[in-house]
Amino acid sequence: MKITRRAEFSASHFCANPALSRDENQALYGEAANPHGHGHNYILEVTLDGAPDPVTGMVMDLKQLKDVIQQEVIEPMDHRFLNHEVPPFDKVIPTTENIAREVWRRLAARLRTSSALLDCVRLYETEDLYVEYFGENAR
Amino acid sequence: MKITRRAEFSASHFCANPALSRDENQALYGEAANPHGHGHNYILEVTLDGAPDPVTGMVMDLKQLKDVIQQEVIEPMDHRFLNHEVPPFDKVIPTTENIAREVWRRLAARLRTSSALLDCVRLYETEDLYVEYFGENAR
Amino acid sequence: MKITRRAEFSASHFCANPALSRDENQALYGEAANPHGHGHNYILEVTLDGAPDPVTGMVMDLKQLKDVIQQEVIEPMDHRFLNHEVPPFDKVIPTTENIAREVWRRLAARLRTSSALLDCVRLYETEDLYVEYFGENAR
Amino acid sequence: MKITRRAEFSASHFCANPALSRDENQALYGEAANPHGHGHNYILEVTLDGAPDPVTGMVMDLKQLKDVIQQEVIEPMDHRFLNHEVPPFDKVIPTTENIAREVWRRLAARLRTSSALLDCVRLYETEDLYVEYFGENAR
Amino acid sequence: MKITRRAEFSASHFCANPALSRDENQALYGEAANPHGHGHNYILEVTLDGAPDPVTGMVMDLKQLKDVIQQEVIEPMDHRFLNHEVPPFDKVIPTTENIAREVWRRLAARLRTSSALLDCVRLYETEDLYVEYFGENAR
Amino acid sequence: MKITRRAEFSASHFCANPALSRDENQALYGEAANPHGHGHNYILEVTLDGAPDPVTGMVMDLKQLKDVIQQEVIEPMDHRFLNHEVPPFDKVIPTTENIAREVWRRLAARLRTSSALLDCVRLYETEDLYVEYFGENAR
Repeated sequence: MKITRRAEFSASHFCANPALSRDENQALYGEAANPHGHGHNYILEVTLDGAPDPVTGMVMDLKQLKDVIQQEVIEPMDHRFLNHEVPPFDKVIPTTENIAREVWRRLAARLRTSSALLDCVRLYETEDLYVEYFGENAR
Repeated sequence: MKITRRAEFSASHFCANPALSRDENQALYGEAANPHGHGHNYILEVTLDGAPDPVTGMVMDLKQLKDVIQQEVIEPMDHRFLNHEVPPFDKVIPTTENIAREVWRRLAARLRTSSALLDCVRLYETEDLYVEYFGENAR
Repeated sequence: MKITRRAEFSASHFCANPALSRDENQALYGEAANPHGHGHNYILEVTLDGAPDPVTGMVMDLKQLKDVIQQEVIEPMDHRFLNHEVPPFDKVIPTTENIAREVWRRLAARLRTSSALLDCVRLYETEDLYVEYFGENAR
Repeated sequence: MKITRRAEFSASHFCANPALSRDENQALYGEAANPHGHGHNYILEVTLDGAPDPVTGMVMDLKQLKDVIQQEVIEPMDHRFLNHEVPPFDKVIPTTENIAREVWRRLAARLRTSSALLDCVRLYETEDLYVEYFGENAR
Repeated sequence: MKITRRAEFSASHFCANPALSRDENQALYGEAANPHGHGHNYILEVTLDGAPDPVTGMVMDLKQLKDVIQQEVIEPMDHRFLNHEVPPFDKVIPTTENIAREVWRRLAARLRTSSALLDCVRLYETEDLYVEYFGENAR
Repeated sequence: MKITRRAEFSASHFCANPALSRDENQALYGEAANPHGHGHNYILEVTLDGAPDPVTGMVMDLKQLKDVIQQEVIEPMDHRFLNHEVPPFDKVIPTTENIAREVWRRLAARLRTSSALLDCVRLYETEDLYVEYFGENAR
């Protein structure tokens, strides 16, 4: 059984590889390469896979799940310019793919319980574009 | 190929384990433990897995699918207080997880045809929280 | 200029006039008359009308607006059975219309500032049904 | 890692098997069998499965993905009567299932790169009904 | 106080003025001029303005409101090709504006009660385009 | 009759009055005062008020409306850091209120035709917060 909790954060980013020229970055990322940055209301869906506890009927304590997402993702990333303020995005290009991986990295250990495991991080950059990450070994 | 049909019902519930004290239930479920109950507009997505019939081009007759969902879930659960009016929730705590399991139990036999099987029951309690159930043996 | 803030609460209610018979209430309100109650994820939109402050560029401090909605509506109504736990709904039938009026009554005085007035309370019972209230004298 | 891009097109269709009588088609497809046709705002979600490129941090160039969807699906199908104007729907009944398969057929070859493969075509006929297709051999 | 009920219908249409040439219609309406037609999932919101009845707490009986919308709009227009099957659209170009006016014409008399009047017909052709009509004399 | 067209742009901003101290700005705007900036997917709804043309059945040519919004708002603001790249936001604090006013200023003259006038600019910063502006003299 899977349980998914949604959260939202507003952040700025831009996408450019410092090893490439301005024109190459423009060709790769289009307007997203503008170093002044631009922003999104990122929608995050965190999915756990587990079995409901026979006593509580819940896969995981929902308040605890919400708190972990808040501490590990929302507080450090919300209202931030990712490239300048949120490591590792000073070194890693904050594409939606890479942000999803970093969210996984921050959440996986803290959401591993006796009855549940992190299954998927889904990150919407806009309502027309989203990424799903299942961990390095999962699929 | 999978086909999913969405439906909605409005119901009340509360979450408390009768073997636990009021304070323990409050600690576990928070405000959801209030025995007066509270309610949700539950959104249900029922997914079938099958092959389209070569004659009809459909995995399943959609009117039949809608009718089964209506009879087995919407009619018995819509506008009801689950704990008091809809067995087994007099004995089983109606967490989103347990409601999804019960929806599966009610639908699985009736949606098994020569060309399709129930694949997933997805139940949204709010737009920020949902559960997916794939049957006891599926995953 | 108008500014609108959305909030959400989950509550139970039922609709029945104690001066009417069970059959009359059933005829009037349908399944909503079931005294066990049922529930909704109510979506509330609170609209203020005012002029942006020349110093701040804001019609109202958004944190203050959020706090007032939280204190006056969300805390007392969220995860409650309105008929049993939230006056005046022990005496006033909690139709969507009457809940919107009560939300207005709770908010109007607290949201009256030198530069802004409460303009509208919009309350969604489901995505297919909503009510808008503009105060007794407004329109 | 999976990346999904959404697109939309408005088209007409009707569902009837020419080997069946009018009454048989009416029984099978209901009002959708009306040969004058009716229409939908189809929502299409195209999912790729792949690994982000170490240089770009992207599974696929998003402009290229958008262009392929535009050329292969949106331009030929948007504002068209599928049965009359978009082969093979002169011969294949344009159920949601069959449209999803045809979208897959049009996209699969063009979206196969060294680092990514088409994973899923999800097609919403309405917000209450959608189909997911994973290719003939995938699942 | 206003109360709004949402409904949905799927229909085909095309937009062309028979007094104009094919090229002129193409210039005016773009791809919507294609006489084969195309379709939409139209979303309709019907708003009444009135005072809640002191006995029922409702502006209008919601089942009655739903029935009137069903009879006057959904049944005649759903799964139809408006230009060919739904008068006056054999003579009146079914732009979103003209469909909204026709919906108003069909609903206004039937929704006039002692306590409520039709206030607005809002019609979404897509999520990016909608029209609001308030009657000939209202504004 | 009113017609509304929706568009979307992704931009960065921060809110701080240069005449105030860092602490004062923090108190006023909270995390939005962070000068690194943060971003949103702004949703814009532009409403015109007018009468449908008797020949075309349309309040305004929709392609023209889309083009004007594209030229005046989307191209200059999309993927930009408003405070640094889009005048007058080097001098005017880009609160949602002030962005809506600027959108109005850019659109009003270009959308004034013989049959229609700009009626409202609605701007969503998030799905929980939006502003509506009707022009200086309108209401």
